[in-house]
Amino acid sequence: MTVRVGVIGTGNIGADHVRRLSRQVSGARVTAVFDVAAQRAQDVARDVGAVAHPGWSGLVDAEDVDAVVIASPGPLHAEQVLACIDAGKPVLCEKPLATTGEDALKVIEAEVALGRRLVQVGFMRRYDRAYRVVKAAMDDGSIGEPLLAHMVHRNASVPDTFTSDMSMTDSVIHEIDTIRWLFDQEIVATTVVASKPSPLAAGRLRDPQLVLFKLTDGAVVNVEVFVNCRYGYDVRCEVVGSEGSVSMDNPSTNALLRAGRRAESVPADWRVRFDLAYLEEMQEWVDGLAKGVVSGPSSWDGYAAAVVANRAVHALAEGTRSLVELVDRPVLYS
Amino acid sequence: MTVRVGVIGTGNIGADHVRRLSRQVSGARVTAVFDVAAQRAQDVARDVGAVAHPGWSGLVDAEDVDAVVIASPGPLHAEQVLACIDAGKPVLCEKPLATTGEDALKVIEAEVALGRRLVQVGFMRRYDRAYRVVKAAMDDGSIGEPLLAHMVHRNASVPDTFTSDMSMTDSVIHEIDTIRWLFDQEIVATTVVASKPSPLAAGRLRDPQLVLFKLTDGAVVNVEVFVNCRYGYDVRCEVVGSEGSVSMDNPSTNALLRAGRRAESVPADWRVRFDLAYLEEMQEWVDGLAKGVVSGPSSWDGYAAAVVANRAVHALAEGTRSLVELVDRPVLYS
Amino acid sequence: MTVRVGVIGTGNIGADHVRRLSRQVSGARVTAVFDVAAQRAQDVARDVGAVAHPGWSGLVDAEDVDAVVIASPGPLHAEQVLACIDAGKPVLCEKPLATTGEDALKVIEAEVALGRRLVQVGFMRRYDRAYRVVKAAMDDGSIGEPLLAHMVHRNASVPDTFTSDMSMTDSVIHEIDTIRWLFDQEIVATTVVASKPSPLAAGRLRDPQLVLFKLTDGAVVNVEVFVNCRYGYDVRCEVVGSEGSVSMDNPSTNALLRAGRRAESVPADWRVRFDLAYLEEMQEWVDGLAKGVVSGPSSWDGYAAAVVANRAVHALAEGTRSLVELVDRPVLYS
Amino acid sequence: MTVRVGVIGTGNIGADHVRRLSRQVSGARVTAVFDVAAQRAQDVARDVGAVAHPGWSGLVDAEDVDAVVIASPGPLHAEQVLACIDAGKPVLCEKPLATTGEDALKVIEAEVALGRRLVQVGFMRRYDRAYRVVKAAMDDGSIGEPLLAHMVHRNASVPDTFTSDMSMTDSVIHEIDTIRWLFDQEIVATTVVASKPSPLAAGRLRDPQLVLFKLTDGAVVNVEVFVNCRYGYDVRCEVVGSEGSVSMDNPSTNALLRAGRRAESVPADWRVRFDLAYLEEMQEWVDGLAKGVVSGPSSWDGYAAAVVANRAVHALAEGTRSLVELVDRPVLYS
Repeated sequence: MTVRVGVIGTGNIGADHVRRLSRQVSGARVTAVFDVAAQRAQDVARDVGAVAHPGWSGLVDAEDVDAVVIASPGPLHAEQVLACIDAGKPVLCEKPLATTGEDALKVIEAEVALGRRLVQVGFMRRYDRAYRVVKAAMDDGSIGEPLLAHMVHRNASVPDTFTSDMSMTDSVIHEIDTIRWLFDQEIVATTVVASKPSPLAAGRLRDPQLVLFKLTDGAVVNVEVFVNCRYGYDVRCEVVGSEGSVSMDNPSTNALLRAGRRAESVPADWRVRFDLAYLEEMQEWVDGLAKGVVSGPSSWDGYAAAVVANRAVHALAEGTRSLVELVDRPVLYS
Repeated sequence: MTVRVGVIGTGNIGADHVRRLSRQVSGARVTAVFDVAAQRAQDVARDVGAVAHPGWSGLVDAEDVDAVVIASPGPLHAEQVLACIDAGKPVLCEKPLATTGEDALKVIEAEVALGRRLVQVGFMRRYDRAYRVVKAAMDDGSIGEPLLAHMVHRNASVPDTFTSDMSMTDSVIHEIDTIRWLFDQEIVATTVVASKPSPLAAGRLRDPQLVLFKLTDGAVVNVEVFVNCRYGYDVRCEVVGSEGSVSMDNPSTNALLRAGRRAESVPADWRVRFDLAYLEEMQEWVDGLAKGVVSGPSSWDGYAAAVVANRAVHALAEGTRSLVELVDRPVLYS
Repeated sequence: MTVRVGVIGTGNIGADHVRRLSRQVSGARVTAVFDVAAQRAQDVARDVGAVAHPGWSGLVDAEDVDAVVIASPGPLHAEQVLACIDAGKPVLCEKPLATTGEDALKVIEAEVALGRRLVQVGFMRRYDRAYRVVKAAMDDGSIGEPLLAHMVHRNASVPDTFTSDMSMTDSVIHEIDTIRWLFDQEIVATTVVASKPSPLAAGRLRDPQLVLFKLTDGAVVNVEVFVNCRYGYDVRCEVVGSEGSVSMDNPSTNALLRAGRRAESVPADWRVRFDLAYLEEMQEWVDGLAKGVVSGPSSWDGYAAAVVANRAVHALAEGTRSLVELVDRPVLYS
Repeated sequence: MTVRVGVIGTGNIGADHVRRLSRQVSGARVTAVFDVAAQRAQDVARDVGAVAHPGWSGLVDAEDVDAVVIASPGPLHAEQVLACIDAGKPVLCEKPLATTGEDALKVIEAEVALGRRLVQVGFMRRYDRAYRVVKAAMDDGSIGEPLLAHMVHRNASVPDTFTSDMSMTDSVIHEIDTIRWLFDQEIVATTVVASKPSPLAAGRLRDPQLVLFKLTDGAVVNVEVFVNCRYGYDVRCEVVGSEGSVSMDNPSTNALLRAGRRAESVPADWRVRFDLAYLEEMQEWVDGLAKGVVSGPSSWDGYAAAVVANRAVHALAEGTRSLVELVDRPVLYS
């Protein structure tokens, strides 16, 4: 059985997904795409033999679309996901699930009302081998009881339109999901400290920043977010436990000795670093669909991440510690 | 278009290929399998919805088989590849292409007679990212002129039936192809030196051994082969040039700090180390077939590797330097 | 000329200093020692041909003592340093210079009154090669403008008498000096967050903790202090700048491949990690004395570190951000 | 007691030794120096308060010289060492002990006639911490039974006067001693293979070369020597055993992330890499002298290294495997 997928949004990420589903994932085929930039949608569609739809809701309802991938701008996600639930179609929604906790809650309510999961949120790091090694070491007792973690999230640069809030809602949101997943706990409070700003950060962007998260059991996680580090894309973490520590750094296999230096490459961006994670994510999603199962990061994960990210925005703006309050977790997500 | 593949041999490697083609490769489907162990073939076939054939030649000729993968015992390869050529079907043959240079030559002659390439040999390392980084650094001038290389090839252990000759024909043959590919040159001579034997090597197996290869332009490559190293699968190389050096070690992303040690995992075996290379190899092969192109390691590569491996066996047995003589390279492979 | 040194305190650190000055440092000789444990002092004295004094003040005044090393318990340091200044003798005082800012100020006042430096504080990290590489990269522009730093300070274990305050005054105080020295700035504020306590931390010790420091120019530094990490002594730092980042990890030269792992040793304790730094510190101190110069970490550095450490103790106790206020820096220390 | 040292030869290495003995080694003083370049000798002497002698034999016999360090050109070593033995004075002779096995034998005979050791050969690597870790892992069973080793010896560049023979007698001689010491065995045969020559190697210098050594128990060691590698000084080794492998690479503590690269420094030359080893060597030598003991690398080690190096020169010239024959080892060196 081949899963027929419709993709909403054919910008960079969306076009990558179309290509991946068409050329690298087994058991899937892209039959429909939509983008507000009609020409771009048609180009992508032609390349893989899909149809470019004039509107996203038509794509959701199309007969030859078994499942939907959403890679449109974040503010549109909640409405589009709700439409998929309404149509009874599985949907993989790029992060964020919603830009507010309230909107994310609507998705949860709709899914709970339906009584089964249709939604997966695109937190692809959970499919990354290196992160999985970290999680395994936490779960199998290798480091004793996890007590504390350090995360680093650096991008080479960002567009001029990038804001301090987006450091939380676009970048740190990945760390938020990673922390929740690794520790299998919720985040209960957050503080944000802006460091001395990089002279290379545009306009009023506060960059780098240091974010502290407190978890249910008291563990503290600090996240450095720096979106103008210049030298590359650098995502790392270390989880410290009572008996040891497990860490993850950039993949390293090759070294070049030249001119007094032993050098290794740093990934240029997240596509280089996480291409295999995206592939695993998609393949597992498609494999699950073939069996009628949705098992990846859930609406609940998307909701919690959105709420925490927004509390971090609040903490930065107010210069205070912000508490995180979540609704009770529905049984569907336990 | 979906490429329908028949797989001859459903032992470990063959079964992996069946699973990979069925579940991970886009655009392929396994329609037919064969194995002398009929039950094993049937189990594998049932798992992916293929037909288990009673003989390999029937599989080659089957209407619903567009292309063949050969993962049978090495001594059968040449005959089976010839049958595929005869049937005009593309074939991906696991190494070795043949156990003798003479048999490999027959394949070349058949393919040359046909006038187009149908055969690809399963030297999967050419699809490994880390090896590709080494090759890129050699090709783009990063290390100046390549002058010398060191290779290490270690297996944790081998079955009792493994012989000193097999160290060359089964293990070093991968290094032989890697060397030829990286340097884009032929090997012209080889010497083999058995070191002090490991007390853990069974029977008369000489292990570890050191193999020297001389290339057309005078560059020397030394290969350590050690198939009882106990601690894991460890494949490395370093190419030294006039301006620098490029090296490849085991992939490293995670570290565990515990009990006085900072530890990283070593791959347990070649399946762990090269699973992504196999996937790339298969996906590229299938993508090529869809376009009517076979472009991976050729019969010529299989022939040269077989000849060199056999000369290394000779060098070990005689304790001398053995010269390598190849026929002229047909235009088809230039 | 040989500098004749008197050593006050012959516990672990003091005995190390005696041995080092006698056997490894060129141009020095230990002529006098004192310890409240008279037998221990006599054993150490006999070993190197020194005299064991019955009181520390007699040692300070002894004719055959050109300079003094203080390795007694911290609460005695200020009084003993003041006696050395009174006697006009150079003194190398182990950290802390004093346990309160007030006492440290008395030392500064005495030295300022004298009009020249006699005091060096034993912040040995400034003599460590790896830390010097970090500082060099900050000073030569390699990382652009320094913006933020991460420090890790882990000890395998501590005695049952160790308290949460001591995490600041005994352990973090080294980070405080390191930060001030690397950035060449003062610390203006600090916050301390206790993480989930290790079940292996004795009694009421809060461990691990995360300490944030803000510097004059706005740069933020976070320090993880964990004195029960079990696996070894692990001191690291990374300084992130606008153009790059420089980091320091445990020294690594050897690896052991065995049983599925590639393992490197982690230092067991600070003596293993910093033995060469101590040697450099002592040699440079003695070399300076021979030329009549005291140039290492000053009373001012000792004062500032004591004040900041005490503010961190306050921040932990009160759960608030504590501001650091220092007196004006005397010209003597500029 | 202070050991008064006379230093013959005040070129780079000799001047380093003078400075080290005067400023960094405890318990030693340089009282006399000699160099054919009289001005250079006087400059060095003035700097440390020593006397510049008009001839080396006068220095050896001087009353205020307790022990001698020889850092003159290699061809003079044997004669000067013999004079020291004649004078009954301990001598630390830089490698080589002699340029021929015959001359080295004369030293052995003189020392054996005297009945006690006076001579130490300057194989400083035995004092290097990283090499000691390798040896410890071989001796304590960590890698099982040592079976094979790989050594790399690269220099950034050499003067135009450097010859292919000197690759053996100046560079590989360090590897020869290292191998003998690590394995605690003699070398019984050697083969040399010149690789494709670097276009940057001057004149007729064959560079790089690959040298194979066979040890008494059959273990094989291969050494790459490359004295024009350009990028730095790079000395490494890996010893492979029946249960594991231990390796040594350049010291690594710091990394710089910048411009797409994670870079570590490679030592510029042997002085950077081995400065601490030289210091340990000298301190241990001086400590031993104070106790009347000479215990470092012996005349026998110098003899064996000289013989093996010369056999390697022969092997290169003749293109054959050269057997190594040593006289019986005198009891004095057992």
